[in-house]
Amino acid sequence: MPFVNIKITNEGVSADQKAELIKGVTDLLATVLGKNPATTVVVIEEVDTDNWGIGGEAVTKRRKRGQ
Amino acid sequence: MPFVNIKITNEGVSADQKAELIKGVTDLLATVLGKNPATTVVVIEEVDTDNWGIGGEAVTKRRKRGQ
Amino acid sequence: MPFVNIKITNEGVSADQKAELIKGVTDLLATVLGKNPATTVVVIEEVDTDNWGIGGEAVTKRRKRGQ
Amino acid sequence: MPFVNIKITNEGVSADQKAELIKGVTDLLATVLGKNPATTVVVIEEVDTDNWGIGGEAVTKRRKRGQ
Amino acid sequence: MPFVNIKITNEGVSADQKAELIKGVTDLLATVLGKNPATTVVVIEEVDTDNWGIGGEAVTKRRKRGQ
Amino acid sequence: MPFVNIKITNEGVSADQKAELIKGVTDLLATVLGKNPATTVVVIEEVDTDNWGIGGEAVTKRRKRGQ
Repeated sequence: MPFVNIKITNEGVSADQKAELIKGVTDLLATVLGKNPATTVVVIEEVDTDNWGIGGEAVTKRRKRGQ
Repeated sequence: MPFVNIKITNEGVSADQKAELIKGVTDLLATVLGKNPATTVVVIEEVDTDNWGIGGEAVTKRRKRGQ
Repeated sequence: MPFVNIKITNEGVSADQKAELIKGVTDLLATVLGKNPATTVVVIEEVDTDNWGIGGEAVTKRRKRGQ
Repeated sequence: MPFVNIKITNEGVSADQKAELIKGVTDLLATVLGKNPATTVVVIEEVDTDNWGIGGEAVTKRRKRGQ
Repeated sequence: MPFVNIKITNEGVSADQKAELIKGVTDLLATVLGKNPATTVVVIEEVDTDNWGIGGEAVTKRRKRGQ
Repeated sequence: MPFVNIKITNEGVSADQKAELIKGVTDLLATVLGKNPATTVVVIEEVDTDNWGIGGEAVTKRRKRGQ
C-alpha cells in the first residue's frame, strides 16, 4: 500500500532503467517493512532541466557549464 | 481552499472526463466538509505507463499481458 | 491504481468525514474512469493553519478575523 | 535541503521566468530560515489547463470566458 | 539531485527502518541512474490509518477486520 | 491559482517565519508571473529529521555530527 514518488530530471532515462527503479523500490519496501508488493505503487516523474533548480539556478544552466 | 492532486495513468482520458472529476471532487468537499468550491483546487496528473509501477513492474508490461 | 492526495487545513475533521471522502473519491474514479476501487489509494493530509497560506497570509490570521 | 514544488498552469512561462522563480524561492529560504542554497531544490510543474480545476471547473473553460 | 517521497501508513516504523529505506533508495538511484548520493533527498511521510484509504475505506477499518 | 508546497525539516520554525515564507512566495509569483495572490496557495510541511534523508542518511544522524 505504500506510495513512492520519484522525481528526476528528464535526461534520457530508458524504460528498462525505470523498470529497475520500480522493482528495486518495491523490493526494498517488502524487505525493510514487510509491505505487500501487489499494492506498492511507484510513480516516476521526469522534470525538464529548465524546471529543476538547485543552488538557485536551473539545471539547464549547470549542464551548460559541464556540471 | 483544499488542494486535491489526482494521479492516473495516461491512457486516453478525455477533457470531459477530467471536467467530471474536477466537478465531482469539488462537490464532494463542499458536501462533506463545507469547503468553498471557489477556492478548491484540483490538479490531475497523467503519468506514462512506463513511469507507473505496481506489483514491482511497470503498467506498460501489465497492459501487454492484458492486465 | 489511481492515487489521490487531498490536502486540507487541520480544523477538526472527524474519522467519519474522512471515511466519506475516501469512499466518495474512490466511487467517483470508478464511475468516471472505470478505475478499480481495490487499488485506488486516497491519502488525506491535514495541515496546521499556520502552515497553510492563501492570499499571502496564513489561515490562522484569516480565522482570527473571522474569515 | 528544502524541497519546493511549484505547480502552475501551462500557459507560456519562459525559461527566464522559471529561472527567476528558482532564484527567488532559493533566496527567500536562505534569508528567512538560513537554508543553504547549494542544497535547496525547486521543481516547477506546468499543468495543462484541462487538468487544473478551480471553482469546480477546468481552467480551459474559464479562459474561454475571459477569466 | 533526485527527490523521493515515500508515503506509508503510520504503524510503528522505527528510526532504524527509516534509515534503511533512505540508504536503500539512495543506493538504488546511484546504481541504476548514476545519481550522486550527496544530493539525493528522501522524505518519508507517515500517514494516520484514518487518513489512508484503499478499496474505498480507511485502513483503520481494514485493520479492525484483521486485514 | 498557483500551488506551492515547501518541505523543510522540523527544527523550530516559528509562525512568524512561516508567515514570511507565505508572503514571500506569494509576492514572487505575482511579480514574476502576474499570478493573483488571492488564489495563490502555499503549504509548508515540516518533516521530522528521522524522516528526511540526504547523502544516504537521516538528517538526525548528520545533526549529531554537527552537520
